[in-house]
Amino acid sequence: MDRLVCYDCGRTYSFGTAARCGCGEPLWFDIDDETVSWPDTGSESAGSVSYGHDGLWRYASVLPAAVPTGLAAAAGGTPLLRTPSIETPDGPRIHLKLEGANPTGSFKDRGTAVGISRVDGPVGTVSHGNMALSVAAHAAATDREAVILVAEDTPDSRLAMIAQHDPHLFRVRGDYGRLYDDTLEHDLGVAFLNSDSPLRVAGQKTVAYEICEAFRPAVPDAIVLPVSSGGQASGVWKALRELGSAGLIDEVPRIYLAQAARCDPIAQAYRLGASRVRPVTDEPTAAVSINNADPPSGNRALAAVDDTDGAVVSVAEESLLAETKRLAADAGVSVEPSCAVATAAVRELAETTEIGADEDVAVILTGSGYKYESPETDSTAVREIDRSDVPAAIRDLAS
Amino acid sequence: MDRLVCYDCGRTYSFGTAARCGCGEPLWFDIDDETVSWPDTGSESAGSVSYGHDGLWRYASVLPAAVPTGLAAAAGGTPLLRTPSIETPDGPRIHLKLEGANPTGSFKDRGTAVGISRVDGPVGTVSHGNMALSVAAHAAATDREAVILVAEDTPDSRLAMIAQHDPHLFRVRGDYGRLYDDTLEHDLGVAFLNSDSPLRVAGQKTVAYEICEAFRPAVPDAIVLPVSSGGQASGVWKALRELGSAGLIDEVPRIYLAQAARCDPIAQAYRLGASRVRPVTDEPTAAVSINNADPPSGNRALAAVDDTDGAVVSVAEESLLAETKRLAADAGVSVEPSCAVATAAVRELAETTEIGADEDVAVILTGSGYKYESPETDSTAVREIDRSDVPAAIRDLAS
Repeated sequence: MDRLVCYDCGRTYSFGTAARCGCGEPLWFDIDDETVSWPDTGSESAGSVSYGHDGLWRYASVLPAAVPTGLAAAAGGTPLLRTPSIETPDGPRIHLKLEGANPTGSFKDRGTAVGISRVDGPVGTVSHGNMALSVAAHAAATDREAVILVAEDTPDSRLAMIAQHDPHLFRVRGDYGRLYDDTLEHDLGVAFLNSDSPLRVAGQKTVAYEICEAFRPAVPDAIVLPVSSGGQASGVWKALRELGSAGLIDEVPRIYLAQAARCDPIAQAYRLGASRVRPVTDEPTAAVSINNADPPSGNRALAAVDDTDGAVVSVAEESLLAETKRLAADAGVSVEPSCAVATAAVRELAETTEIGADEDVAVILTGSGYKYESPETDSTAVREIDRSDVPAAIRDLAS
Repeated sequence: MDRLVCYDCGRTYSFGTAARCGCGEPLWFDIDDETVSWPDTGSESAGSVSYGHDGLWRYASVLPAAVPTGLAAAAGGTPLLRTPSIETPDGPRIHLKLEGANPTGSFKDRGTAVGISRVDGPVGTVSHGNMALSVAAHAAATDREAVILVAEDTPDSRLAMIAQHDPHLFRVRGDYGRLYDDTLEHDLGVAFLNSDSPLRVAGQKTVAYEICEAFRPAVPDAIVLPVSSGGQASGVWKALRELGSAGLIDEVPRIYLAQAARCDPIAQAYRLGASRVRPVTDEPTAAVSINNADPPSGNRALAAVDDTDGAVVSVAEESLLAETKRLAADAGVSVEPSCAVATAAVRELAETTEIGADEDVAVILTGSGYKYESPETDSTAVREIDRSDVPAAIRDLAS
């Protein structure tokens, strides 16, 4: 699997010869239809032991890397849960894809696992969160040097988490958005597994393979996910294109993307009916992991929405904060605000009947909220009590 | 499945009629041999959608609860990884079971999922960590009241994590160890899913089902895990007994238990050749989640070791701290120190040739380290740099 292609102009390149298409758009791997099939239901053998959990390597035939041992083998294969407790009477059936079950707690492990299993030598990334942690961990597992470039305002607690895995960790002063381009332009001897690189998109697409396989022989009516760089949205679209082209799905789920209203360049372009995303000036938002004012795969994400008859939704700050609390309190699922925008978007789409009450929606919850600082607890949340008073206090609750 | 039995004296009880055997020992569910079988390799159907990830419900035939929807469906089904990067030349083949992939980041979700799917009404637990979080999350997902009793010294950051799920959260002054007995003795109208309750042990046993199924038709030579209350050790032993009794495994893996030397009542009893565990006076250890000076299922854990020709290992404080760092830096796996005692024990057992170089060892890594405060980062771990200096800095790394 060595051919890259531009989704937009169709130009092809050999893997390793170009970071972007000549037209400026991002590339992804070109997959032959005959490699696309549903896997056997049984487990694959990994080494001498047959493991029940194949993770994303269940779809090895459509991945540009060989099945690895160690941490990369654990990526993907996450639970998908029907969650009646957060459904509304007039809303769709909601199925949550818990990407926090990946080894470093986020969806980023999919792309990292595929990328690191394909390239040799040092790896790197530009990220201030989930992707930095994922690349650092997978590099440690494969005894590689890792170059992790984070923004100046990345909190110390997050750096400590990443530093456990012993990467070369740089906190970079200056235009953080431009850093992304720097790593594409310079020949630095480091394979940067950035958010929309072809290897990462190949790994990220497996989440949509898993969702569609779970619904066989039907498909969900819609897939809803947060969007930042557009890399994961590209991966979902890629999977649906491959499955459709190979005749494995009859209908194509609509792709809905969710952004925080305070930083929503893709949603703004969608509302304007534009096919090109323009950088925006963002305001600070609690949805830090999707705070991307100039998304490198923004145009491709827009194309995904357009091609599948989906939409891009802007979620107000108070709504995404409320939704974060609601998922924890009503579904038992802790997520970042960056992730809660997706179920908040489902609620809005259901209210406008864009998603119908008789529909099935798969929502990609991109990562665990436990990794990051929990929301402030108000002083009434915890009661201080003597042991001898516990029985009476418990009985009081019931009455 | 309504019969409980004492592992020690064999007395039986109907479920719900006794918290402990008359002889003082803990009870577990009695399972008929004919219900024990390897599942089909295909997926089970959960509701209207066939999900690829069945989790622990793959073993529903030996569980005292019906297959649920929502969060409880996501427990179990965790990755098992051959991990050559932490093996030593004269040591065994190491396979890590990543229990941090459970929905709340620890092995405790197995027991909680089974327990909450069996009982009605309010649930509770006595825990200052993983189990508290797990019970709070699963209660939220099933719209139950949860009573969470934590020790006085539980840090605020941990309480904030638990509080997300809106339980009744009590920080209890007084003898924390005795609280456990309180919740058994009082009829409080709350089903306490404590660490060695029969429902929890039923859920916890599934990790050993998964490990043994992965090795089919062989078995691992040993299973190594941290021990605190003895509940998880009981679960592993229970699974091996069930699988052996049903003729599904020919040989029984040896069970090795690991404790922190600063709080090692089960290891002390093992070294004395005793069959009963005595409470110890503990010293503070970084392995807080297994800091249990008076383990309620300690005797049963000892019996598991004795029955399978295993051992109990005390791990020195500096060794468990070093092992925590090593797992992150060499396997890419972040764990609590409470969890790293297990691979530290493997190293010690390999050095004394108690575990041979040609053997396969499955190590249960009970939970994710990302949930808790990361180890202190020394100031050299992060480099502050201007964007324009990044290319040169990266090139310097290679030279």
